[in-house]
Order: sequence, then C-alpha cells, then structure tokens
Amino acid sequence: MSKLPNVTTSIFTVMSKMAAEYNAINLSQGFPNFPVDERLTDILARLSKENVHQYTPMAGYPPLMNKIARLTFDSYKRIINPELELLVTAGATQGIFTTILALVKEKDEVIILDPSYDSYESPVLLCNAKPVRVALNDDYTPNWDRIEKACSAKTKLMIINNPHNPTGKILTENDFIQLKNLLEKYPDITILSDEVYEYITFEEKHISAHTKDFLLDRCVMVSSFGKSFHITGWKIGYTIAPEHLMKEIKKVHQFLVFSVNSISQFAINEYLDIVDVNLLGKFYQEKRDYFQKLLQNSRFELKPCEGTYFQVASYATISNEDDVTFCKNLIIDHGVAAIPISTFYSDHKDQKLIRFCFAKDDFTLESASEKLCQI
Amino acid sequence: MSKLPNVTTSIFTVMSKMAAEYNAINLSQGFPNFPVDERLTDILARLSKENVHQYTPMAGYPPLMNKIARLTFDSYKRIINPELELLVTAGATQGIFTTILALVKEKDEVIILDPSYDSYESPVLLCNAKPVRVALNDDYTPNWDRIEKACSAKTKLMIINNPHNPTGKILTENDFIQLKNLLEKYPDITILSDEVYEYITFEEKHISAHTKDFLLDRCVMVSSFGKSFHITGWKIGYTIAPEHLMKEIKKVHQFLVFSVNSISQFAINEYLDIVDVNLLGKFYQEKRDYFQKLLQNSRFELKPCEGTYFQVASYATISNEDDVTFCKNLIIDHGVAAIPISTFYSDHKDQKLIRFCFAKDDFTLESASEKLCQI
Ligand SMILES: CSCCC(=O)C(=O)O
Ligand SMILES: CSCCC(=O)C(=O)O
Repeated sequence: MSKLPNVTTSIFTVMSKMAAEYNAINLSQGFPNFPVDERLTDILARLSKENVHQYTPMAGYPPLMNKIARLTFDSYKRIINPELELLVTAGATQGIFTTILALVKEKDEVIILDPSYDSYESPVLLCNAKPVRVALNDDYTPNWDRIEKACSAKTKLMIINNPHNPTGKILTENDFIQLKNLLEKYPDITILSDEVYEYITFEEKHISAHTKDFLLDRCVMVSSFGKSFHITGWKIGYTIAPEHLMKEIKKVHQFLVFSVNSISQFAINEYLDIVDVNLLGKFYQEKRDYFQKLLQNSRFELKPCEGTYFQVASYATISNEDDVTFCKNLIIDHGVAAIPISTFYSDHKDQKLIRFCFAKDDFTLESASEKLCQI
Repeated sequence: MSKLPNVTTSIFTVMSKMAAEYNAINLSQGFPNFPVDERLTDILARLSKENVHQYTPMAGYPPLMNKIARLTFDSYKRIINPELELLVTAGATQGIFTTILALVKEKDEVIILDPSYDSYESPVLLCNAKPVRVALNDDYTPNWDRIEKACSAKTKLMIINNPHNPTGKILTENDFIQLKNLLEKYPDITILSDEVYEYITFEEKHISAHTKDFLLDRCVMVSSFGKSFHITGWKIGYTIAPEHLMKEIKKVHQFLVFSVNSISQFAINEYLDIVDVNLLGKFYQEKRDYFQKLLQNSRFELKPCEGTYFQVASYATISNEDDVTFCKNLIIDHGVAAIPISTFYSDHKDQKLIRFCFAKDDFTLESASEKLCQI
C-alpha cells in the first residue's frame, strides 16, 4: 500500500525528541547550539521591516544568485552562469530530492554508497528506480572496484557526499582520478555531489566537484547555507548544474515548491558581502580538537575526522549492546544523545559505532564530555 | 528524454518578468503589493535576535501546529490532532506536490478540473500516473455528471480548488452533496482540497472540506499563510489529513524538505494570537468592489468573483487577439500585466479572457484602471 513501506521516523527526529524528553545534552541531530553571527541576525531584523515579503523569482532572488556565483568562483575558480546553472532551494534536502525526481526514471539504477546519509534512497524509490548500495572500504574511502562492478547500462546517477556524513571522510585527488576513469566508461552516468559541508574541512582541503573539468557537464552539486552559516532552520540551499540538467531540475522545482523563503534569501545575500567562509574550517577544527581532547581519557575510541561537524566513536570496549540500544541507554543513563551509525547502513550493520555532533558551544561539549568520561 | 517534456516557463514567471522589463503595473502573478501587517513584521524583527535559527521538528514547530489546530477549530469547528494530522509545508505548493507523490502510484488516475491552477498535473506525471481533466461548466461550476463519467476503478485522487483560481468560484452545499454521492460509489478516491484562498470569500461564505463529515477520513486539505497574511514570499503552508494518509505524506516530506523555515514558523505562531482572519474577506471584498467600480467604464466585461483576489475579464469586444498575445500587448502598449486564462486550460482554449490580481494598494488599482479604461 505505502509507496515507502520501509520508512520509519527519522533517527534524527527520534534522538532529538528523546534527548528533549530526558533533558539530555543533544549531540545527535546535526545543528549548532551557539548563537548565529550577530551581523546576520541584524541584517534579518532590519530586512523584516522592508519590502521582502513576496515571492522571489522561481529559481531564486537574482542578487543572491549572483553572490552564489561569485562565492563559487572565489572558492573554486569555477565560473557559473547563475541564470542558467543555479537554483536556490529549500535546503539541500530539497535540492537532492528535486534533482533525483528530475533526472531518474523508472527502472534506472542509482549508485548510493554505504554508509550514507538517509535522504538519498527514498526519492529514488519514488521514481520507481533502484538504489544500488555499494559498501565503502573499512576506512570509509570509496571502493572504486566495487563501484565499477555495480555500474551498468542502467546506471543513471551516482550520489557522492563529500565531506561525508557521518564519517567525516573527504575525497582525495586519487578518488577523482578513479571517478574520471569510471565515467569515461559510462557516459550516461550523472554525478550528484552532496557538498553541504564543503567549507568544513580540516587538515586536508576539500576538493569540490566544481574543480574538476570532467564533471562540468555531468555533475549536479548541492550545498546549503544551513551548515556554512549555522542556520539549519532557515532551510536555504543551492543546486548548481549544467544547463541541460538544470533545465529539468527547474521544471520539477517549479511545481515542488515554486520558490523559497524570501526574507532568508535577502538576508543571506547581504551577509555574503561581509562573511568569510574560509574561517569556517578553522572554527570547527578547533571544536573538533577540543572535543577530542575532552574525550581523551574516556573509554570511547575516536575515529579520524577530516571534515563535517561529526565525530565517530567506537564504544566496543564499553558495551556489547547494539548501537541503537547503546544510544538510547546513553540518553537515559548518562544524559547524552548521539546517533547510531548502523542507521546509515542499508543493512543496519551494527559496528558499535556512534556519531557525536560537535557543533556546540564549549560549555555543552565540556558538560557532555564530563558525562561521557564517567562511562 | 525529459520527464516533463511539456513544461515550459510558468506563465507567472513570464508575465512578472515582462512586467518588470516594460515597467508595467503587475496585476499578473498573485501577490499583494501593500505592506505586511506591522505587528507581524515587528514580531519577525524581534525574533530575528532570538534562538529561532535551527531545525524545527520535521512536521513543524509544535506551538505553531497547536495554533493551526485551534484556527481550524475556530473557523470550521473541526477538531484535528496536530501531532497526527498536520504538516507545516514550504508553501501550499509543497503540500500539494508532497501529497500527490505520497498517494498516487504508477498508472493511477487523478481527476483535475479544467481550468485549473498549473501545479496539479506535473506531480501526477512524475508518479507515472494519468491526469484526467474534466471541464467545468461554462459558469465554472463543477459538472458532476462529467466528473462521474471520468471516474473509474483507477481513480485514486480528485483535486478540487475552493475558492477556485483563476475563476474565483466557490463550491456550494449542493456541490458537496454531489461529491458525497460520487464518493459513496468510489470508496478508493481521496480528495485533495486546495483551499489557499479559504479566508478570501465575499457574499457567500466559504464551505471548507473540513466542515463535511464524509470527507474526514478521505480528504487532504492544503492551505497557505502566504495568501491569508499577505506574505507570499515566506512560503509557509499547511496540510491537514487523516492519520493514515498523513503518515504517508510525512514519509515523503521527510526526504523532500525535512522541515521548513524556522523563523517564519515562530513568527506566524505569535501572530496567530493577535490576527483575525475573519477580517480578510471584507478587506478583499472592498478591493474587488473598488477595482470593479474603477473598471466600470472600461470596455472589459467583468465576470462574477466570489472569492480569491483575482478578477476575470473578457476583452472580446476590444480585440480579436488570442489571450496570450493580448496580455503581451497589454504590457507593451498599455503598461498593465495580466494572466491569460487559456494557460489554465489543458487544451489552452482561448476565450478572450484574462485574469487581474486585485491584491494591490488603491493607488496601483487606480493607475492600472486608468490605463485599462483608455483601451
Ligand atoms: C535534517 S535532520 C539531520 C541533520 C543532519 O544533517 C544530520 O544530523 O546528519
Ligand atoms: C507561485 S506563482 C503563482 C501565484 C498564484 O497563486 C497565481 O498567480 O495564481
């Protein structure tokens, strides 16, 4: 009966709700708990009293679109035509859903890496198409042999997420060489590159799909201001694609949402003149380092974290519970909420791993760590 | 190749853009040009500096959901359970798209009246289902015989729009009796009732699907604050459905957008305490009456307008041009933008009719009418 029979309440909803119920410190769902840059909220407050309350054009508020094009150039030396290649979306989620709906047809196959963020599969199923999950290597790097074996004439789309949620892994130059080789063999595959954490990388610099010429006419890049500006509630993202793909994406967008929240677009447009996205990596690197230091004497084993604001940790030496049970008990017994990593796997494989969000103020990280160190 | 081969740029985009280019008075796309209630923008400005910038829960900001439930009770004596039967959406468009994606399967049929607002067909096509268009009577009332003839075992959904865009027609008690009879014969049909202009009716009171017991467990009602509070740019709407349908709608919503703009939800939540939606009908009735009076000596023949903020007018005695050409020339030669009614018909039938939006300040209505009276 249901078109999505296997969908249950999202783990982010479950854990955030449970955290609230038990008054636990919420390091589960990914959102910052510190105040937004005052300069941005000042802009928003001022604009509230201005003429910013009616529909923006379908593809976005034109001045904002120009700024996004400039940001893309400044960050990656990629020149885009905002009128033909850009769409402002109600968050990256809407960009991903819209892209899949626009490009994937019945019986097509879509490569989705495993583990993956939870929002890639359902839109594929809604197209009556087939998600083909390909396991990452144990160190969370893509296994290009396995990926190639999973490709076929039916493969329409391959979704990459770079930096990767939940593992914090980023793609290397070598990954892109492998991808290039693969795409040469499969001229019909389009890449959907989810780069919502594009500005949150640490020791290694993020390599965007934008920087690769071989992707220019076959890659849809999705990003979000929610992550970059600590405003996950605003739900403003953007999608960049070559004209022939963007034409199709816009057709779906027009009926899916028509246009997106105007005030937020006006505010981000002004903010882009004064904010420096290059400070973001350092900001979150300090948070990561601080959180890792705070947990250094805990019994959790911390995994490497190259980007995103998520820290994966093993509790294998602490408990034998499966990770969902462990997370629930972590809330109930210790007052800290995290996300079980099994929920990112198609087969819900339990590896005694959980994900903490460290996009929190120092006091929160300290209080949570204190509790975690007592386990 | 394209999944929506027949979709072109929306007429609302075309006309609003052309109006801007020619510096014409824009009575085409439906949006108010007067200031938003200061009490609402004051709330928004104040909230901008508060803690309102992160994800709200997936289905909406809970206090707002309670207020919508209260509004629904106050307006229609309909009791809903906000947790199980309500979803806050990125505008009514997203509510409509999400409902269709959730409920309509491959090869299903969906009844869409003709003429209709342009956003119903494409989501049906994206489900690989079939839109079945049924012509309204000449006076824009539903033709229940024709509707019944169009129904079959394959019919999954019937979309009604009440008050009706573009004709301003509202459904009568008799229409609901006919609908009840029809639904008794077709137990599998669900109703999608687009009521975004629910508070904008004039001499006759709006009869919402909420007031009909026979619809309680088989109707999805979609509405929008954009219309009711003159904030079309905010893109905040809501969808109400019985639990068994809402469960499916939420599954799609979770991956389509996850949640919607937080600040706007917080602001509308507060505003609902002080605003009286019952004043809206009178407000727009005065605008309608004033606009009709201003055009009384023009050569346009005005059609009856029972609701919405749209006035349909015939130019048959003025010109023999088709309505799209007439609208383009109206912008170029006379500086007023309108919408050709043919674009709401599946066969683009030209009837020398155009639609004016009268959600404009008096000065704009006066300036436009002055130009229109000179034709
Ligand atoms: C949209 S809720 C999930 C937020 C997020 O990106 C995450 O926690 O992984
Ligand atoms: C979303 S643009 C169309 C606005 C509208 O409702 C109309 O003009 O009919």
